[in-house]
Amino acid sequence: MPPDLLDVVIIGAGISGLYAARQLRPQHRIAVLEARDRVGGRLCNHRFANGETVDIGGQWVGPGQDRMYRLISELGFETWPLWDSGDNLLWDSNRGRRYKGTIPRIGPLALLDLGQAMARFERMARSIDTAAPWAHPNASKWDRQTLASWLQRNCRTRRARKLFAIGIGAVFAAEPEELSLLHALFYARSGNSLETLLSVTGGAQQDRVHGGTAGLCTRMARELGDDLHLNASVSSIEREAEGTLRVYFHGGVLRCRRLIMALPPNQALRIQFSPALSARRDQLWQRMPAGSCIKCVARYDRPFWRDEGLSGQVTSVQGPVRVVFDNSEAGSESGLLMGFLEGEAARHYGGVDAEVRRRDVLDCFARYFGDQARRPLEYVDRDWSSEPWTRGCYAALMPPGVWTQYGQVLRDADGPIHYAGTESATEWYGYMEGALQAAERAVGEVREALSQNAVELPSLSRQQWEAPRV
Amino acid sequence: MPPDLLDVVIIGAGISGLYAARQLRPQHRIAVLEARDRVGGRLCNHRFANGETVDIGGQWVGPGQDRMYRLISELGFETWPLWDSGDNLLWDSNRGRRYKGTIPRIGPLALLDLGQAMARFERMARSIDTAAPWAHPNASKWDRQTLASWLQRNCRTRRARKLFAIGIGAVFAAEPEELSLLHALFYARSGNSLETLLSVTGGAQQDRVHGGTAGLCTRMARELGDDLHLNASVSSIEREAEGTLRVYFHGGVLRCRRLIMALPPNQALRIQFSPALSARRDQLWQRMPAGSCIKCVARYDRPFWRDEGLSGQVTSVQGPVRVVFDNSEAGSESGLLMGFLEGEAARHYGGVDAEVRRRDVLDCFARYFGDQARRPLEYVDRDWSSEPWTRGCYAALMPPGVWTQYGQVLRDADGPIHYAGTESATEWYGYMEGALQAAERAVGEVREALSQNAVELPSLSRQQWEAPRV
Repeated sequence: MPPDLLDVVIIGAGISGLYAARQLRPQHRIAVLEARDRVGGRLCNHRFANGETVDIGGQWVGPGQDRMYRLISELGFETWPLWDSGDNLLWDSNRGRRYKGTIPRIGPLALLDLGQAMARFERMARSIDTAAPWAHPNASKWDRQTLASWLQRNCRTRRARKLFAIGIGAVFAAEPEELSLLHALFYARSGNSLETLLSVTGGAQQDRVHGGTAGLCTRMARELGDDLHLNASVSSIEREAEGTLRVYFHGGVLRCRRLIMALPPNQALRIQFSPALSARRDQLWQRMPAGSCIKCVARYDRPFWRDEGLSGQVTSVQGPVRVVFDNSEAGSESGLLMGFLEGEAARHYGGVDAEVRRRDVLDCFARYFGDQARRPLEYVDRDWSSEPWTRGCYAALMPPGVWTQYGQVLRDADGPIHYAGTESATEWYGYMEGALQAAERAVGEVREALSQNAVELPSLSRQQWEAPRV
Repeated sequence: MPPDLLDVVIIGAGISGLYAARQLRPQHRIAVLEARDRVGGRLCNHRFANGETVDIGGQWVGPGQDRMYRLISELGFETWPLWDSGDNLLWDSNRGRRYKGTIPRIGPLALLDLGQAMARFERMARSIDTAAPWAHPNASKWDRQTLASWLQRNCRTRRARKLFAIGIGAVFAAEPEELSLLHALFYARSGNSLETLLSVTGGAQQDRVHGGTAGLCTRMARELGDDLHLNASVSSIEREAEGTLRVYFHGGVLRCRRLIMALPPNQALRIQFSPALSARRDQLWQRMPAGSCIKCVARYDRPFWRDEGLSGQVTSVQGPVRVVFDNSEAGSESGLLMGFLEGEAARHYGGVDAEVRRRDVLDCFARYFGDQARRPLEYVDRDWSSEPWTRGCYAALMPPGVWTQYGQVLRDADGPIHYAGTESATEWYGYMEGALQAAERAVGEVREALSQNAVELPSLSRQQWEAPRV
């Protein structure tokens, strides 16, 4: 017997796919297919030996991310503000200088230079329509160059360029030369402004979720029951004569009227489609590589740096860890320092021994906060580029020429195939909020399509349900 | 029973994979797996109704491509020089101007500007070591910017920029903004110089192969007999405890000591590896998208344009067909005009109706050569971006930041997995000659590895030979 015909199959049980599922049930018969043995995608809890957990993937929410705060509350979770008291550190030339807020204390010339460049960037970003970056009057000019080229022309001091690049690394997990200027502007605008993306209080790093953001996914997954299939990587998708789809996955095959792809472009590219997807779609996905990020967390018995009036936040010109936060969970006694290896540093440390990585990261922590930081109770890191079902974080990026030449199909459905995932968001691209916004749009498309065509299906013989033709 | 252990499995029966097979046999037990029902990869013959054939994929050889000329001769094929007599046309502002050679006749200012920019580009290219572009003293500066940014600064006149970009389109099947400046320089240097790549007589477009370049592949395939498997797309590759490999393909499984991947990066990315490949390898492949090209050929009863002293070669500022050649085969009566839709034009025309594409291409031919060109006996085109087992031509390109941050692993073997294919060449990257040079290197690596370890294998139980775990 051919498998039952479902209304919707969703590929990917990250926060986008699960949110889509939550919105479609119970009116629609659905299934969610997840390649891993866990839900959450780029959200993941690490459990320390003492039972505490920490987000080893995406972790922050902030003002303007209304869907996220609503979901957190609906699922019975709570947020707390990231520790943001005390002085931040700017580390350069082997010493740390204290400062407050987003912009570090640097020489007046470099500060002016950085301020002017940021103001210019923000002005340009504000003019972008995030639903159609390609339609901007300057789109082709801005998409012809890298952000690095723009910085070269618009920051006169090397120090301002360096600091701008550190901010870019923290936001994109990529180097400025990997990004189209247009993409950087779009991305910043999609989260309001670059300053919002760089800020803690009042910005994208303001709040954390008790129990971890992955908890949201686990909770949503529980609602799904048997409609969620783990260890179910999809190998191919075939369109049937009736316009319906067969989805072949490890362990079986499903049939559906509509499909929602809720996974990163580099993963979508690895699925076989029959008939083949359009040239534009395939080549778009070829041109959306993921960023490079290793998230590193050290647990201490207490947040000792606070004793000296330090916030735990570092911006460092000397790598490899250039950005650090106090990641301690409110209500816990442990002190957590969290540092990112991003872009070039992530590529390098992705290829070295785990012990060397640990040592070099803790060396950085010790440089910033004293020798005590070298001896945590526990240390954990996660190289998202080495995860076979993710292959890079935080999100896919657009090199020059992609938005203007391929962007128009990014969010368009291909017949019964719809796209969710943060990479198809017009708000908060790259963030959890973007994952929800994209899911919401995809669900809207699917609902409308299902209400219009209630497909009548002829019966199919058993012969037609052979193993996947991979 | 587990399948026999082969010495080498080669994935991809393009000219690179077949050439590798030819060098390894008969000393070694090998198999070649090809996803398509034909060999040749990006080389392909189209057969016209009158029985004549034309290369609808890669077609040219030229001086400096010694391996290609040797192979052609060894296989008993012959070359002839592309028709290169008469005047070329530069089409602009609705009129054509005749010129001779590579550089079209344009106003003196633009000509000077173009000449200076090209000379500067060539000088930079000459300084590149194609085995290690990342090691150049200016590597990071040149890899931070797009070729478009460089043109913007180094061509003062819009017309010179435009003409330079047409040349780039013809060579790369991409727009200048898609290319890292460093990649453009590397690519030009790998084929001697940009002028070589742009030239017909004395350059990369000098000679054609009677019977088509795909004929070379068919001939090599015949030598392979049963060692060649068609319709055998590879889904996954697993490393066995003994260090040997299992290669799962549509139709079966093979075991081997060494593997040669002879397929484009965007295709390699779609194969599952267990254990997973390194982060650097996977992210490199994510960052090597294929160019965009539609090759269009019209057949007429005779090459009527020659009557007017025209060579059939066009460089056109007005698209969509910007580059045209007289593609008639020596000894045939038919006249063939061949035009490329490249980069942006290929993306656009990949998405329109075949009839519209045909009409617009023939409109261009008619604009250049008169109304007669609008009525060919036959017309054929091929959008390589829509081919599921290629997904873009001529070759993979490097956006900014890739060579310097990922280039060092491009040609390195991953344990028993070796890389061939033109994208791993140090000479003539993107050309057939590069495909051979890369195969030669991979074969050398494999031979050395095989001579060092004659793996002794324990017997394996039948249980271990289940269906692929996709």
